[in-house]
Amino acid sequence: MEEKDSLEIARDEIRLLTEEIIGLLGERMRLIKQVSAIKEAKGLPVEDVNVERKLRRLVVEKSRDCGLDPSLSLKILNILLNESVSFQLKEKREKSLTPTEMLQRARQVEKEKGEVIHLEAGELDFPTPKPIVKALKESVDLGFTRYSDPKGIDPLREALSEHLSEKFSIDLSKDQVIITHGARFALYLALSRLLNSGGESLIFEPAYPAFRMCVEYLDGRPLMFRTELENKWVPDFDRLEDMFQDPPDVMILNYPANPTGKILDKDSLSRLVDLSSKKKVPIISDEVYMDYSFKSFSSILEYPDCRSIMISSFSKSYSMAGLRLGYAIASRNEIEIMSRIQGLVLTCLPEFVQRAAIRALKCEDEVSENVEAIRRRADMVNNLLSNSGIASIYKPEGGIYLFPRIDTPGFNSESFAIDLLEKHRVSVTPGSAFGGYHKHIRLSLCQPEDRLIEAVNRIKEMLI
Amino acid sequence: MEEKDSLEIARDEIRLLTEEIIGLLGERMRLIKQVSAIKEAKGLPVEDVNVERKLRRLVVEKSRDCGLDPSLSLKILNILLNESVSFQLKEKREKSLTPTEMLQRARQVEKEKGEVIHLEAGELDFPTPKPIVKALKESVDLGFTRYSDPKGIDPLREALSEHLSEKFSIDLSKDQVIITHGARFALYLALSRLLNSGGESLIFEPAYPAFRMCVEYLDGRPLMFRTELENKWVPDFDRLEDMFQDPPDVMILNYPANPTGKILDKDSLSRLVDLSSKKKVPIISDEVYMDYSFKSFSSILEYPDCRSIMISSFSKSYSMAGLRLGYAIASRNEIEIMSRIQGLVLTCLPEFVQRAAIRALKCEDEVSENVEAIRRRADMVNNLLSNSGIASIYKPEGGIYLFPRIDTPGFNSESFAIDLLEKHRVSVTPGSAFGGYHKHIRLSLCQPEDRLIEAVNRIKEMLI
Repeated sequence: MEEKDSLEIARDEIRLLTEEIIGLLGERMRLIKQVSAIKEAKGLPVEDVNVERKLRRLVVEKSRDCGLDPSLSLKILNILLNESVSFQLKEKREKSLTPTEMLQRARQVEKEKGEVIHLEAGELDFPTPKPIVKALKESVDLGFTRYSDPKGIDPLREALSEHLSEKFSIDLSKDQVIITHGARFALYLALSRLLNSGGESLIFEPAYPAFRMCVEYLDGRPLMFRTELENKWVPDFDRLEDMFQDPPDVMILNYPANPTGKILDKDSLSRLVDLSSKKKVPIISDEVYMDYSFKSFSSILEYPDCRSIMISSFSKSYSMAGLRLGYAIASRNEIEIMSRIQGLVLTCLPEFVQRAAIRALKCEDEVSENVEAIRRRADMVNNLLSNSGIASIYKPEGGIYLFPRIDTPGFNSESFAIDLLEKHRVSVTPGSAFGGYHKHIRLSLCQPEDRLIEAVNRIKEMLI
Repeated sequence: MEEKDSLEIARDEIRLLTEEIIGLLGERMRLIKQVSAIKEAKGLPVEDVNVERKLRRLVVEKSRDCGLDPSLSLKILNILLNESVSFQLKEKREKSLTPTEMLQRARQVEKEKGEVIHLEAGELDFPTPKPIVKALKESVDLGFTRYSDPKGIDPLREALSEHLSEKFSIDLSKDQVIITHGARFALYLALSRLLNSGGESLIFEPAYPAFRMCVEYLDGRPLMFRTELENKWVPDFDRLEDMFQDPPDVMILNYPANPTGKILDKDSLSRLVDLSSKKKVPIISDEVYMDYSFKSFSSILEYPDCRSIMISSFSKSYSMAGLRLGYAIASRNEIEIMSRIQGLVLTCLPEFVQRAAIRALKCEDEVSENVEAIRRRADMVNNLLSNSGIASIYKPEGGIYLFPRIDTPGFNSESFAIDLLEKHRVSVTPGSAFGGYHKHIRLSLCQPEDRLIEAVNRIKEMLI
């Protein structure tokens, strides 16, 4: 009886406290609305990263003071921040056309006005190599159409770990490999693991839009870090070290970079890795363009002491985009947990496609040919634009894109991309899609040389 | 200057309030620990659905009182509940062996002791029909190996909407169809849409374990509703209506049912639909076994006024499990949003596999043959066990499983399943996996008749 009472008393207190908390949350929301009105009147931007980070720090300190797990409080703070941003924002955030949206528009124009030169999407124009197609069909005939391991099949994990071990002179085990539904799902898994709800993810701009989108989808807070053409797309380390005083939860790297074609030199990469190791910030390294390197490229895998998840894909290297196979490389423990998530959400991946991917790893000649073709195209378009006097470019060191800055006065990437598509049937992605680079456009190199020349001519025509 | 001050003042107040809230959260956590200690001492269970639901109601009312969006408060409450449960629980929740875990164990035993009769997994033993395999290979040759629409390709969506329209005498448009990576990802998408963080999902037991797992993965709260063999697996409507006084966010149905083989009669289904419509509770209906119906089966699609998402798959009907194609049927608006999520997380699905699925929809003869084979097996195993005097069964009306209750004294499904596998090399799933049905085991019918007879003999040998 006495125990029953104490239980009831404690429960009643919990209820009262909960009510009190809700009351304070209501009060807080009223103040948020007030701040929003003041900002609106002053024409101030809705989001203020510094104010937000200060609040995060305060919450962490206060939580520690009162014996509360800071990650719990940060989760709650995140819900409050998202709510206040969405209240204040209401569609106000600059929306830009993504590559996918440009592709959809281009298809519409194609239907209405005839053929479009597609430089918006990052899908290679090379056919899937014949040996891969052959292996795919044979695997279907062999009956590899049943459920398989959510981690991916062992022979592929084995072959891939050997392939990467050789490529980067490292010692990788198959237990550090999970095969995923494209690099996209690898990114989802990696962020699910490393980013607590409300956690911050450092993303270097210009950035592949999916990074920010996936962070936001997972209730994380993207922390954008701008880099500039003038600095050869290398991050400003002073500013970065300053930001790491209050370190983010995770840092995303992407070299060879989409959209700039940048490959960070080894010294700078080592400096990034040192900084993040010192501050215990894990790294997600998206290396889907690793084979498209026109100079020496170092993988995050070459830093075995750094806590990282490397993600990549068969899509770009082997023209297998539509087969949807990617992978993540991480510690055994991370792989175990990621495979439980993949099993829960997707069950597994088609085994016959994975069998074909084993064959893909032997297609070295085809890969070399394709890389050489892209390098030639990159050189060519770079020269055409550099010599035109209308654009400034950092010559790509890898990847499958160019990201020129158009120097004609009053240039705006978004309206330009729309006009170019409507009037000249060339589809490019506006630089604004990669983080407010309104003077830049992204050109993908996934067209034969004559089409690229034609596209550049039409671009020049619009500009001169 | 004056405005700057008012902004600063408001921000300072927000900070102070935030600190105060954190302080109260710390206080609350102390009380939770106190409650936990009392429960521990009294031997009371950690989770108490009624206490929790009372708290939810209180939070909703209090939020409305102070002008706060109740869904915001519920999200926060959910974080607190999950935290206190995980604090109190620490691995205490009854863990049961799932079908997947049994399969892994069985494979281990197979390696060590020789062939196992697999009645644990739900993968049909029929080969993928030849016309589907042929279409798959042809589609590869035709080059359908590129990126495609995240909604699924139009010709398949079109063909599927026609197929289902005919099957259920309804009028479905392709805009109500999304093709997904298996029914698993359809479930993930459906729950993502209908279940707010902290929302409740009603699940009828015995239940396919993935329902609860996916709800918990998405930070929802599973609300389990037990049904009994004695009541022919029909839910107790009085109890259900009582529960709907405080309605859950979503209700999951699964007929023909895994594991029971139950098909709810039309009257009961209509009653469920009415109840949920009245209380504005959307329904997720998992109909992956719809073709395996041995009596008349009504789809949720036959209730066009009810807010629902129907999910299903090509895996079971066409022996295409390893091809990973499922789908969801919902309103156009839901399909748009779900396809944005699928696009973000998975980009798209392989087009050549989708082309093969179009062909699958014409394999009516193969489907009929397979369904007939399963029906024969179900009858046979049902008779063998019913006449043995050791088991009580509700004779399956559909699906690909039997869920007998073993009536021998002291029977425990978990230890029995492990012993049966170790000693007699027959692998079944313990009933505990489907929600504490310790007297039941699930037998899948995915083996030829002679193997099933042999398996039943070995089960009898263990029991008698």
